[in-house]
Amino acid sequence: MHIGIGELSARLGGELIGDPALQVSRIGPLESATTDTISFLSNPRYQPQLAASNAGCVIVGPAMREAAAARGAAIVCADPYLAFAHLTQWWAAQRRGPAVLGVHPSAVVEPGAQVHAAATVGAMAYVGRGAVVEAGAVIGTQCHLGEDAFVGTGSLLKPRVVLGDACRIGARGIVHSGAVIGADGFGFAPDHGRWVKIEQLGSVLIGDDVEIGANTCIDRGALDDTVIEDGVKLDNLIQIGHNVRIGAHCAFAGCVGVAGSAKIGRHCTVGGGARILGHLELADNVHISAATVVTRSILKPGQYSGLFPIDDNASWEKNAATLKQLYTLRERLRAVERALEKQQ
Amino acid sequence: MHIGIGELSARLGGELIGDPALQVSRIGPLESATTDTISFLSNPRYQPQLAASNAGCVIVGPAMREAAAARGAAIVCADPYLAFAHLTQWWAAQRRGPAVLGVHPSAVVEPGAQVHAAATVGAMAYVGRGAVVEAGAVIGTQCHLGEDAFVGTGSLLKPRVVLGDACRIGARGIVHSGAVIGADGFGFAPDHGRWVKIEQLGSVLIGDDVEIGANTCIDRGALDDTVIEDGVKLDNLIQIGHNVRIGAHCAFAGCVGVAGSAKIGRHCTVGGGARILGHLELADNVHISAATVVTRSILKPGQYSGLFPIDDNASWEKNAATLKQLYTLRERLRAVERALEKQQ
Amino acid sequence: MHIGIGELSARLGGELIGDPALQVSRIGPLESATTDTISFLSNPRYQPQLAASNAGCVIVGPAMREAAAARGAAIVCADPYLAFAHLTQWWAAQRRGPAVLGVHPSAVVEPGAQVHAAATVGAMAYVGRGAVVEAGAVIGTQCHLGEDAFVGTGSLLKPRVVLGDACRIGARGIVHSGAVIGADGFGFAPDHGRWVKIEQLGSVLIGDDVEIGANTCIDRGALDDTVIEDGVKLDNLIQIGHNVRIGAHCAFAGCVGVAGSAKIGRHCTVGGGARILGHLELADNVHISAATVVTRSILKPGQYSGLFPIDDNASWEKNAATLKQLYTLRERLRAVERALEKQQ
Repeated sequence: MHIGIGELSARLGGELIGDPALQVSRIGPLESATTDTISFLSNPRYQPQLAASNAGCVIVGPAMREAAAARGAAIVCADPYLAFAHLTQWWAAQRRGPAVLGVHPSAVVEPGAQVHAAATVGAMAYVGRGAVVEAGAVIGTQCHLGEDAFVGTGSLLKPRVVLGDACRIGARGIVHSGAVIGADGFGFAPDHGRWVKIEQLGSVLIGDDVEIGANTCIDRGALDDTVIEDGVKLDNLIQIGHNVRIGAHCAFAGCVGVAGSAKIGRHCTVGGGARILGHLELADNVHISAATVVTRSILKPGQYSGLFPIDDNASWEKNAATLKQLYTLRERLRAVERALEKQQ
Repeated sequence: MHIGIGELSARLGGELIGDPALQVSRIGPLESATTDTISFLSNPRYQPQLAASNAGCVIVGPAMREAAAARGAAIVCADPYLAFAHLTQWWAAQRRGPAVLGVHPSAVVEPGAQVHAAATVGAMAYVGRGAVVEAGAVIGTQCHLGEDAFVGTGSLLKPRVVLGDACRIGARGIVHSGAVIGADGFGFAPDHGRWVKIEQLGSVLIGDDVEIGANTCIDRGALDDTVIEDGVKLDNLIQIGHNVRIGAHCAFAGCVGVAGSAKIGRHCTVGGGARILGHLELADNVHISAATVVTRSILKPGQYSGLFPIDDNASWEKNAATLKQLYTLRERLRAVERALEKQQ
Repeated sequence: MHIGIGELSARLGGELIGDPALQVSRIGPLESATTDTISFLSNPRYQPQLAASNAGCVIVGPAMREAAAARGAAIVCADPYLAFAHLTQWWAAQRRGPAVLGVHPSAVVEPGAQVHAAATVGAMAYVGRGAVVEAGAVIGTQCHLGEDAFVGTGSLLKPRVVLGDACRIGARGIVHSGAVIGADGFGFAPDHGRWVKIEQLGSVLIGDDVEIGANTCIDRGALDDTVIEDGVKLDNLIQIGHNVRIGAHCAFAGCVGVAGSAKIGRHCTVGGGARILGHLELADNVHISAATVVTRSILKPGQYSGLFPIDDNASWEKNAATLKQLYTLRERLRAVERALEKQQ
């Protein structure tokens, strides 16, 4: 694939510095760029790499305009990282080619399912009774759509996704392989030492423009539904318990776990491996650091953390052992303070 | 679906307060209940919601009898949460309808497999040589049963479950989508900086009435078997290493990891994201809090915890930095104490 | 299966003590061994079990030669654990029998895919356009190989593995069920409170002799590739972010998460549930303890740890509460020290 930087600049809405006829054939990082590479600089920290780069063209912000021009061809955009994102989308669309419409002969579509003529159902996929696949949607190979499941316009299910009975995903979603949407929430009533199952009668409702990572699980609600609002991005291997609500435009990194009935506000971010306990509430714009455990509601926006600092093993052992006496240390310190006060 | 509360009360074995002919058509929480909703109150904390609820009928315990009667129709049960669980089971059974018996034409059943005539094998499922599927069992679409795998009476494998060679699950089990039972345990012998595989020759034995969550993994044993006893409930995305034994009626929340050869007693609970290291033993009735790491055997029943408390990021940073000097602080405190002792 | 210990000894390259015609028919631990069992002792800690064992034959190291000979038949090897590993491999190969070569009639192989005549493609597997399956490779039932995917000589994909478009695994690899190789990395550019997708244009390159656990995810790179070098062993439910590089012969236990662009050296080990944050570097021979969070680069070999010690819940609560005032305690201690200094 080859494209002139003049055409690219026009698509990205930037100012072109250099010859519009100059061709690029790959996108790459500054460091490993070759003369046919278009690269970008968004973090000023990496400015030293700019001068040293062999990139044929570089996308930069207004502040880097002169530095980039001194080096060679450039496209100056208000937000170079966003322009880079748009560039990758255009690039991927060129590579992908048009989807093959229709239902693969090896797929199983139950009577009563509605697959739009302009949708795709891949090889060995299963579409249950009453399920709806809207125009432009792509159901990957070996996917399972349960009874009355719904896939909105233009949504893409990668191979081997499970969308359970009556679960819905809106328009332009992306669900990666192995994700399970609509497994039963974890609910049991104790009965003399045994666990009696509480059937999970709710569903999962997912808004528009949501992306769900590989092997991530979103459980159906017990009575009401589990809800993922518009624009939410979930990474891989995330667990979302029953009746959770995740507000619009949240982004959760990999391996996060959210227990049942937690309510997360809008525009929150959660770092990798963090845990949010059940029946909690997070306000809008709360940011949780990686590997932090949220044990109480957080009603004020901000960054919250709680993880044990890493150390060489011997130091950690000594500090961890002392930590088990920390309360006692505080008591001893108080005693010392009192003794000193008496002296004065 | 409509049902009279008289009939429901009889099914649940409770005392009916109100008109037995009153119909309900959904189960819902007190808060969002409408007049055709049956709801329940088990936690006295939510009593204020009782008076305010529009529910047509409410399941309550004896202590709430008067409060419920003052409001309207009610079913009084010894254990309202358990009654609610039974109600959901009855409700789900009505909704589900009877299973379609037999093997879907798109499934692949190898010669020498035994599928009971009253069992179900879904579309594009695979049943290996020598595998046994007992009466009433349901093998979901796209499942894989390995050679000599065994699925007991009435067990339900949701779509896309893997039950590996020679692995067995007993009666009335439920396995959710994406679960992998019987992958190789993680065993290697070091050989001059390389890892030499130890083939995993054991299997996985799962008792009766076990539920296993979506994308959960239970590894086969190295020599002997990995064992999950009767009535165990495992949530999603749990990792159970080789040769682990989990005692009857344990319940583990999502994202728990149990390393190889750990032996867990009966009636234990493990909170979400907790880790249990290998070759440990937990007594019966041990309860591990969420996100806690069990690094030693626990031989006494009780609740055990160990997680870093969450804080605003700036406070956490200061405390975490100090934590790395905690042992030194203890030494300094001791020095201060000694200095004071000398003074006296 | 029966085999004489003379033949076994010859295969393992050990010294035989006892009658070479003695037959064994299973491998088992010392503790539960019967007279037809071959067992092994590698950890001197378990020596007391040696004398008590009923094993027909025991593999031991030179230091245990006399103790073993006093008990009965034995095979003395320089490294008994390594010999045991080789024994399990031989045993498993006997049990397994030869693979059924060829493409199962229910599989879907797209035009332009190249499946070697001496390879196996299982039932209901999918092989995309341009994909290559080399000699001796086994593609399990219900696997998905994307366009231009590559599976090297003798590699084994267990049922229901996804190897995405253009992703490659070398020779003699093992990938367990549910693993997803080549899902999109998690990359978005913020745009006025929304997330704009950065298409992930890189791939995943996996070397030779790599083993990947069940439901583990390895994301494709954003621009360059994610790289797993030769001999790496990854356990189940691991998350490897985009553009990570894992050096040769690393071993990661279950539930580990590695964020994007981390560079891990060779011969590193990472304990279960540990997290490695993004854009970090680990030197060769760094060992991370279970459940530890790596928040900075580690350039010196050694063992590193950081996890909150478990305690009974009441003690933990007191210590955790005090931990939130730790910095203040340090300030108070300093004040006390100063007061004492003034006195002297």
